[in-house]
Amino acid sequence: MRRMNGMSARIAPADSALAPEIAAQLKRDDDGLVAAVIQQYDTKEVLMVGWMDDEALHRTLTSGRATYWSRSRGEYWVKGETSGNVQDVKAVSIDCDGDALLVQVDQHGPACHTGAATCFIAGGPLPVTA
Amino acid sequence: MRRMNGMSARIAPADSALAPEIAAQLKRDDDGLVAAVIQQYDTKEVLMVGWMDDEALHRTLTSGRATYWSRSRGEYWVKGETSGNVQDVKAVSIDCDGDALLVQVDQHGPACHTGAATCFIAGGPLPVTA
Repeated sequence: MRRMNGMSARIAPADSALAPEIAAQLKRDDDGLVAAVIQQYDTKEVLMVGWMDDEALHRTLTSGRATYWSRSRGEYWVKGETSGNVQDVKAVSIDCDGDALLVQVDQHGPACHTGAATCFIAGGPLPVTA
Repeated sequence: MRRMNGMSARIAPADSALAPEIAAQLKRDDDGLVAAVIQQYDTKEVLMVGWMDDEALHRTLTSGRATYWSRSRGEYWVKGETSGNVQDVKAVSIDCDGDALLVQVDQHGPACHTGAATCFIAGGPLPVTA
């Protein structure tokens, strides 16, 4: 388990305050993460995909603000902490095999750091040629 | 890169027929995979999350049937191949940093192998206590 400076230190599953009965449902990848699909609760638009470990999920469920583990920066981040484009958590579901979460949120401002409404609008379409 | 028997052999990115300009956009994990969020195109319901490597994405884009790499079974699988619950691909987008895909499909029958309409209905809600 990675340990880094200050607030960013990755918290081991055993040390997270995530409820044990929830932790037992998670099927984590080799980095201890599950995929979190973020959906605008009313329009059902898929906004982005983030990554959560036990502690990020715990913070998401108990703070009401979607919180992720950044694979690139190696730290926890609350979406909108700096931009103000926060995500108020409305509901969270886990999938049948425990390796993905569906997080329904009320997104304030654009979801993507590029300024696009969603990260998939930012990335754009791929050609379906069937 | 894993090599296994017959049809299931994992195809290395360099050997996949995926268009190079698309392959160049992918930010694969250590297993060579990106997350694919599968959404019913008209109701916008999120059905499941699957995993694609270059070849699975190539097959998805060119066959019109959503095709995945199974992390548990170590093989390619066309959703619905045995159950008949296929996914006709309507549109595919990539996200801003290339590690996730949004695949809009027309789902035939239930999306989840449990028989539930979606894998998130099958897994169920987690308690949001904020």
